[in-house]
Amino acid sequence: MHGYTDRKDDYNKRLRRIEGQVRGLQRMVDEDKYCIDILTQISAATKALQSVALGLLEQHVAHCVADALATGGPEADAKVKEANEAIARLVRS
Amino acid sequence: MHGYTDRKDDYNKRLRRIEGQVRGLQRMVDEDKYCIDILTQISAATKALQSVALGLLEQHVAHCVADALATGGPEADAKVKEANEAIARLVRS
Amino acid sequence: MHGYTDRKDDYNKRLRRIEGQVRGLQRMVDEDKYCIDILTQISAATKALQSVALGLLEQHVAHCVADALATGGPEADAKVKEANEAIARLVRS
Amino acid sequence: MHGYTDRKDDYNKRLRRIEGQVRGLQRMVDEDKYCIDILTQISAATKALQSVALGLLEQHVAHCVADALATGGPEADAKVKEANEAIARLVRS
Repeated sequence: MHGYTDRKDDYNKRLRRIEGQVRGLQRMVDEDKYCIDILTQISAATKALQSVALGLLEQHVAHCVADALATGGPEADAKVKEANEAIARLVRS
Repeated sequence: MHGYTDRKDDYNKRLRRIEGQVRGLQRMVDEDKYCIDILTQISAATKALQSVALGLLEQHVAHCVADALATGGPEADAKVKEANEAIARLVRS
Repeated sequence: MHGYTDRKDDYNKRLRRIEGQVRGLQRMVDEDKYCIDILTQISAATKALQSVALGLLEQHVAHCVADALATGGPEADAKVKEANEAIARLVRS
Repeated sequence: MHGYTDRKDDYNKRLRRIEGQVRGLQRMVDEDKYCIDILTQISAATKALQSVALGLLEQHVAHCVADALATGGPEADAKVKEANEAIARLVRS
């Protein structure tokens, strides 16, 4: 069980839509579409991926990190550190 | 003909790999993988998308914008403005 | 008392250095420095600001959010929501 | 002479405002302000810096890069490459 378990259907629906956007990008390249239109579509797919990431992260903090903090000890510190490293990767990507 | 035309195969190969990463994300959600591992994979897909975008943009500036600037006139200004709006969308996504 | 209280000196030292970088940017503009060199300096100042933000956020989660989660109740949910909104602003800025 | 030369006053006004925001951040840390409020202020300063960068970049492409492209030769390719590296640093910061 993870923070996102009860929203799996929602996440998979969003990821399938992103998969469709990436396939659409291949079609655009194949059909020699205008570069700027491809870039606009890439920005949309990137934003959609980041939105999935922010949702997962919120539920991770609200559940996994919260459970570890309720228990306390070195495990709690490790979970906070791990979550912060994931946030740093998102901010920098 | 666009700036990226002679690298279509390379772009489509990279986009197919990103499509594979997004399908991998669906599998991770299905199989209840750990949230942080999913986030790491999302950061990798996001970086790969941005790298495609930066490549397209470079060739767009080197060809489409360069051609418009060589011709001059209001068309040139419009191309520079359009490229800058695409850059702003990338920086902010 | 906040998560960052015992590192105030470190944060203020880093912020003073960023203030110096921003003053340096004004000098570069005044002295007609080359645009690309100014952009490189802006990227450095932006990264330094984000690094301060990530440090503050880590301590905020480890202390303020952790305390709220230990207490539980609606206050805990509100703290998690608030932290996630701050993360989303960082990811999108 | 650079692309930004005739807007130096505007850029310096914006950079002085950002310097003020960074000094405000030091005051917030000194006065033990709430972490989330500090993070909000950091996001605002980051966005303001990126907005200056996008403005400089637009004028750089419209002037310096345009002039090099009008002249042509290896200098033109070098300018396009340099501009793209600056864009990549902005996208990744």
